[in-house]
Amino acid sequence: MVPRYARPEMTAIWSAENRFRIWFEIEAHATDALADLGTVPKSAANALWDWWATKPVIDVAAIDAIEAVTKHDVIAFLTWVSENVGEEARFMHQGMTSSDVLDTCLAVQLAQAADLLIADVDALLAAIKRRAFEHKLTPTIGRSHGIHAEPVTFGLKLAQAYAEFDRCKARLIAARAEVATCAISGAVGTFANIDPRVEAHVAAKLGLSIEPVSTQVIPRDRHAMFFATLGVVAGSIERLATEVRHLQRTEVLEAEEYFSPGQKGSSAMPHKRNPILTENLTGLARMVRSAVVPALENVALWHERDISHSSVERFIGPDATITLDFALGRLTGVIDKLLIYPERMQKNLDRMGGLVHSQRVLLALTQAGASREDSYLLVQRNAMRVWESDGQLSLLELLKADADVTARLSAAQLTELFDLGYHMKHVDTIFDRVFGAA
Amino acid sequence: MVPRYARPEMTAIWSAENRFRIWFEIEAHATDALADLGTVPKSAANALWDWWATKPVIDVAAIDAIEAVTKHDVIAFLTWVSENVGEEARFMHQGMTSSDVLDTCLAVQLAQAADLLIADVDALLAAIKRRAFEHKLTPTIGRSHGIHAEPVTFGLKLAQAYAEFDRCKARLIAARAEVATCAISGAVGTFANIDPRVEAHVAAKLGLSIEPVSTQVIPRDRHAMFFATLGVVAGSIERLATEVRHLQRTEVLEAEEYFSPGQKGSSAMPHKRNPILTENLTGLARMVRSAVVPALENVALWHERDISHSSVERFIGPDATITLDFALGRLTGVIDKLLIYPERMQKNLDRMGGLVHSQRVLLALTQAGASREDSYLLVQRNAMRVWESDGQLSLLELLKADADVTARLSAAQLTELFDLGYHMKHVDTIFDRVFGAA
Amino acid sequence: MVPRYARPEMTAIWSAENRFRIWFEIEAHATDALADLGTVPKSAANALWDWWATKPVIDVAAIDAIEAVTKHDVIAFLTWVSENVGEEARFMHQGMTSSDVLDTCLAVQLAQAADLLIADVDALLAAIKRRAFEHKLTPTIGRSHGIHAEPVTFGLKLAQAYAEFDRCKARLIAARAEVATCAISGAVGTFANIDPRVEAHVAAKLGLSIEPVSTQVIPRDRHAMFFATLGVVAGSIERLATEVRHLQRTEVLEAEEYFSPGQKGSSAMPHKRNPILTENLTGLARMVRSAVVPALENVALWHERDISHSSVERFIGPDATITLDFALGRLTGVIDKLLIYPERMQKNLDRMGGLVHSQRVLLALTQAGASREDSYLLVQRNAMRVWESDGQLSLLELLKADADVTARLSAAQLTELFDLGYHMKHVDTIFDRVFGAA
Amino acid sequence: MVPRYARPEMTAIWSAENRFRIWFEIEAHATDALADLGTVPKSAANALWDWWATKPVIDVAAIDAIEAVTKHDVIAFLTWVSENVGEEARFMHQGMTSSDVLDTCLAVQLAQAADLLIADVDALLAAIKRRAFEHKLTPTIGRSHGIHAEPVTFGLKLAQAYAEFDRCKARLIAARAEVATCAISGAVGTFANIDPRVEAHVAAKLGLSIEPVSTQVIPRDRHAMFFATLGVVAGSIERLATEVRHLQRTEVLEAEEYFSPGQKGSSAMPHKRNPILTENLTGLARMVRSAVVPALENVALWHERDISHSSVERFIGPDATITLDFALGRLTGVIDKLLIYPERMQKNLDRMGGLVHSQRVLLALTQAGASREDSYLLVQRNAMRVWESDGQLSLLELLKADADVTARLSAAQLTELFDLGYHMKHVDTIFDRVFGAA
Repeated sequence: MVPRYARPEMTAIWSAENRFRIWFEIEAHATDALADLGTVPKSAANALWDWWATKPVIDVAAIDAIEAVTKHDVIAFLTWVSENVGEEARFMHQGMTSSDVLDTCLAVQLAQAADLLIADVDALLAAIKRRAFEHKLTPTIGRSHGIHAEPVTFGLKLAQAYAEFDRCKARLIAARAEVATCAISGAVGTFANIDPRVEAHVAAKLGLSIEPVSTQVIPRDRHAMFFATLGVVAGSIERLATEVRHLQRTEVLEAEEYFSPGQKGSSAMPHKRNPILTENLTGLARMVRSAVVPALENVALWHERDISHSSVERFIGPDATITLDFALGRLTGVIDKLLIYPERMQKNLDRMGGLVHSQRVLLALTQAGASREDSYLLVQRNAMRVWESDGQLSLLELLKADADVTARLSAAQLTELFDLGYHMKHVDTIFDRVFGAA
Repeated sequence: MVPRYARPEMTAIWSAENRFRIWFEIEAHATDALADLGTVPKSAANALWDWWATKPVIDVAAIDAIEAVTKHDVIAFLTWVSENVGEEARFMHQGMTSSDVLDTCLAVQLAQAADLLIADVDALLAAIKRRAFEHKLTPTIGRSHGIHAEPVTFGLKLAQAYAEFDRCKARLIAARAEVATCAISGAVGTFANIDPRVEAHVAAKLGLSIEPVSTQVIPRDRHAMFFATLGVVAGSIERLATEVRHLQRTEVLEAEEYFSPGQKGSSAMPHKRNPILTENLTGLARMVRSAVVPALENVALWHERDISHSSVERFIGPDATITLDFALGRLTGVIDKLLIYPERMQKNLDRMGGLVHSQRVLLALTQAGASREDSYLLVQRNAMRVWESDGQLSLLELLKADADVTARLSAAQLTELFDLGYHMKHVDTIFDRVFGAA
Repeated sequence: MVPRYARPEMTAIWSAENRFRIWFEIEAHATDALADLGTVPKSAANALWDWWATKPVIDVAAIDAIEAVTKHDVIAFLTWVSENVGEEARFMHQGMTSSDVLDTCLAVQLAQAADLLIADVDALLAAIKRRAFEHKLTPTIGRSHGIHAEPVTFGLKLAQAYAEFDRCKARLIAARAEVATCAISGAVGTFANIDPRVEAHVAAKLGLSIEPVSTQVIPRDRHAMFFATLGVVAGSIERLATEVRHLQRTEVLEAEEYFSPGQKGSSAMPHKRNPILTENLTGLARMVRSAVVPALENVALWHERDISHSSVERFIGPDATITLDFALGRLTGVIDKLLIYPERMQKNLDRMGGLVHSQRVLLALTQAGASREDSYLLVQRNAMRVWESDGQLSLLELLKADADVTARLSAAQLTELFDLGYHMKHVDTIFDRVFGAA
Repeated sequence: MVPRYARPEMTAIWSAENRFRIWFEIEAHATDALADLGTVPKSAANALWDWWATKPVIDVAAIDAIEAVTKHDVIAFLTWVSENVGEEARFMHQGMTSSDVLDTCLAVQLAQAADLLIADVDALLAAIKRRAFEHKLTPTIGRSHGIHAEPVTFGLKLAQAYAEFDRCKARLIAARAEVATCAISGAVGTFANIDPRVEAHVAAKLGLSIEPVSTQVIPRDRHAMFFATLGVVAGSIERLATEVRHLQRTEVLEAEEYFSPGQKGSSAMPHKRNPILTENLTGLARMVRSAVVPALENVALWHERDISHSSVERFIGPDATITLDFALGRLTGVIDKLLIYPERMQKNLDRMGGLVHSQRVLLALTQAGASREDSYLLVQRNAMRVWESDGQLSLLELLKADADVTARLSAAQLTELFDLGYHMKHVDTIFDRVFGAA
């Protein structure tokens, strides 16, 4: 975790305090269930909750000090709780194994993290939607291969991003369901020393599903799917960030990240306004994605478990979720405050001398009876002259002057073929598909 | 694609012939829709389908020869169709762009591949289920960290695998839905030259969803999610393969890959029976996973598209699906014919002198009134002697001879604590969860 | 391997025929050494070489047919050789294990592949160098963050690429040395059944080093280093390809991939010239890099070997080397024939109204006695006006009109600060560093 | 960075304080060179060094506070230095750009980190060597595919590890040289505002090479190679860790991680001694490797630089080096204190009834005149009986009772073939190769 790429709410999920709070809840709910089953006295469960009701401070340092002696984190925690609760606490953890606590806790943390990420995507979607409607009909050039193709609208670009992050939201919801399971099944998953009803009770209380069959641990294919999904979301962040970076480059300059009046762009070149937020997002996307491979390598634990996954998760659990949360927040800010320059978009649209309308002319010629091959050649020979003039010549004018063309299409027909509105006629349809009918 | 790791049905999906067949169907269905909209004559659509009804051979070499001249695959294909269908074919592809055909075709191929993979998982699930019920109550040692822990049953191990691959099936179904979309939206996705109803018609005919908003291409976050999912399935394959490899090692030998009488294991050591299929599966899993990173890197295409994704997909489209299909088939065979040795499992269970029952003794001592710490020490001092004897001493006998223990638990009680049945009492519950109640 | 991204010479290295030829040489050289040691008759070695001198066709189908029965590739090969050579061939392979042949063969193939790749880089370096000197002093704008910074020359951009690929060459040479080792040490690497002098002899004959200590196999950290190095080279390819893609985008257009007169860019937009080769190289770079992770995962084989690495290497051995060879060749062609537009570079340089000289003005003001902060503000207030005029205003003119500036610097001094030559004065120094002094 | 997997010396390299110290040295050495060139007064350089000689505390909080205003880290640092040094400090940083400082600083940090890692490997090599000589002739079974193959010695296993880490050391030395370069070349690498001799001077003072041609930044192929190398070292760590994990599993138990008398293995199973250090190393290896892909993705920066690499390096710079340093230290401890059980190795060697000698018998039969095929069948039919007896039958006894065998080999000859010494005769040779002749 790099502090400058972290926000407090997500960071708090991974704090020692939050972890110990979740541990306590797991233990206390389990003790409730054990008491209901008659395995331990009801007074034991009550003692735990009574203490909890006093809103005790979690003394992380004290627990760490015990762990330094016992070299076992869960035992250290149980010892500390016992010191606070007293004699009754000895019934805690009956028949459970450390992993029951650790893995169920991780499930809660990942579910909490997923909830934040889903809320982040909601905020991003709202920002994208607002800007998309704002520029629903702002014409801009569509580009394939970085080369001008045909007109689109800036709203359509954002509608694409909206649809993509809407898919990301659905994926995050599915990823949350993957990992939000509770396992309290004992040392090798047989429930030999603990009744399955304890698991069911704790799961219900924590809002988790039961893990149908665990070993000592919850199977790591679930976590692999979770982190793989974060990696896909990161890919989508990189895509939108890359779009902004392209739009901001000097020669294009159709949009810019917001630049506050007092901000310095460079120690050497005071005029520079750099797309540093989106470049940063590109790097952060690489980092979130870098969690995917170790998460995949974590799946094949040996037999009923080995602990190789644990150190990996100590890194990627916090790092991938904190970084993705930060990145989604940063991207939301970028979109929300993005400086958008419609005039420049129009200027760029026009700079190719109308070449962007060539396919439409091609189709019109075909429909007017020319063969596909002839139409192609007719358009190409005029298009090439415009291209070589660097947009100084006008395709429309050249076509009007080409007898082989005017034999098929009148000047009026040609002029009509260069109408931008033609390209916008289905924007409503697409917006309805993406944002829902009004 | 490496031929020895490929099966014909999946390989056929990626053949040039299948690709061209799908292209034809896209074009012909689109022509139908265009005719219905009055854009092209109905006779054009009819001409295409009439020719198709003759079940023409797809002359891949002829199409390749045209492409060698035109340097454009879709134009080459359209030219070849025109040569066969005649004049009416010129109405094909009206207002479409190559990517409409290429991307929708890829969607069909990936959906076909997903269908095979789902069927593969079904076959694997059936094999696992059969063997799981066969060994539902076969006792075997559960191991954490490679060290004997407590008894489980071999059926439980397989139930775990079943649940994991059942999740994989659900993930594959979701991954299929991710990629099974149709985009026929023209050069930059605006439908400027083609009515959205054409897309809807082709999508319906091919069993795809419409892509709500495309650029020139279908967005690659969908494909990233698809290949990431294959990577997770590969992780699960590696896990089960690793289990078999462990079980087959000389000192364990609780199971073996089927070994036909005439098979030679090694040119040098005639007695060797090596788990080469599961070792191979471990390697194949690495390969399927290796598609995930490039698929994630493919997401951030520039503007409305660049073509960097294409070469990646020419590799990973076939490679990841063909390899995963092969691996699932191979794993199914391994499980189906796995030689399982219950006697050896029992022998291994017994080799630790009963140490595997220590936690149960620990609990019993606690319940009999000893403190957790005292119980732990009592068990540990006896357990350590057994451990150091390499299983020659019996924990049960030592406990019976330990006055501090017998002060709490009678010999009969101690004997009962070493009953294997204790560990199996919830196997039915778990099987019901995994396989459904009988 | 995807045929369209493969060249014949590299592909041949991975052919069955080449593999069998190398196997034969290993076996025959080993038989020589065994004969010299008196382990086998000299006549046995002679028989092998006599047959080889007849330049026998390698009958791959026949060997495959034998393997279909024996299910063992090396035994099948030895059998086929015996069928051809006769009785004397039975002394072949004495004391050797299959891996001695397989791993040493892989070493030879990887060394051959490395030689081709090094030659590829040499060809690329030659192309880059030629174009670098051609445009040594062609002014062009340097960009950071995609934003105009200060002038550079196009030759400097290419010098950077040259230096980078020169490092890649050194890395490939080191990677070749990593894998070019010979192991003929028997079933577990102890030389129990074969004298180490056999290994030394074969190594010398094949131009390999001896593997100081092998297990059954050559350790896979060597191969991991090899494929990691290919991944780094791929990264450098992507970098130069990305530069070309940027330079070719419509608004920049400072360079273009060569576009032959008859070539069609798009089925829909006849004017388009797309940087498809460099986009393709971007994708191919992703694929070469995708070999790195499985190669790293191959290192941790179990004990003296497991065979999980083998399937991985059947993919990545050919795929990564063939794809990288193709990519280097394609990139060489791109650079060699790159259309470079100095006029456009100058036009782009000028389009910011001289803002690219702002840092120089800043320094001059400082040296003329202004504080750093004052200088910054003086430059910034003029620079911002130029920026907002989209290059219509001239920074030089504004500065000349700013009394606070002219209080420090005369008009003549200011004019001198806008001299492009200032930025080129150390180009010779850099060229000497990169290409060596003349 | 996860504190529990970090050691102080490596962590200190990445502290803000160390970074600022390096920044100062870069700036002060550059000022020296600028003074020698007459660009700035010598008094400016002296003022810097005079202040430095007072061993000033680096007030990180103060610098951070300035950065919070300026939003620029280098400017903040320069401002803080100016506040301390006074008026003369304004000559610092003349003609330099932030990246000159940042990238050269990163080079110093990576070189410092590499030095620690190389020292770590030296310590590991020393531990491996000591244990290797201690067990140079301790017989143990060699295993391929997890199956008993032929005898090796435990010293040979460690010699293999030694040779592997010796290669890792050489790779780390090469990786250090890759990144240890100095670039002080100004905003786009042209030295427009700074003489190349400044770069040369600073490089010499800091023990770096000059970067022959930089853009705004040092090219990232260097860093990619660095992190790729760390990934390979991590692979080797995983390999040795995996070996220990296998050796410690209950059924094998030929070695164990050191287990202190008071240590608790499990909260539930007091007898357990788990290989948790090496399992942990397996996970840490995954994390170090996870830096490789983002480092490769960092290479293709746009034009003369974009800043996407920076956030990646803020993670992987510290994380990969700190984690690898910790892992090497932990592995050294594991090897140093490894409990090694020769008796158990012998017991395991014997458990297959002598099958491990079968290849030697096979060879002897061949040399005694039997055909390869006959020899194979003779050995195999006896070997299979031993195998099926689970080592209760003795291969030697069965062979002595097989008339077809004794027709070729006498009982004495057969007995000699089962001599363990036979497998150790070249251990000296291998040790000489690996550790150097005595």
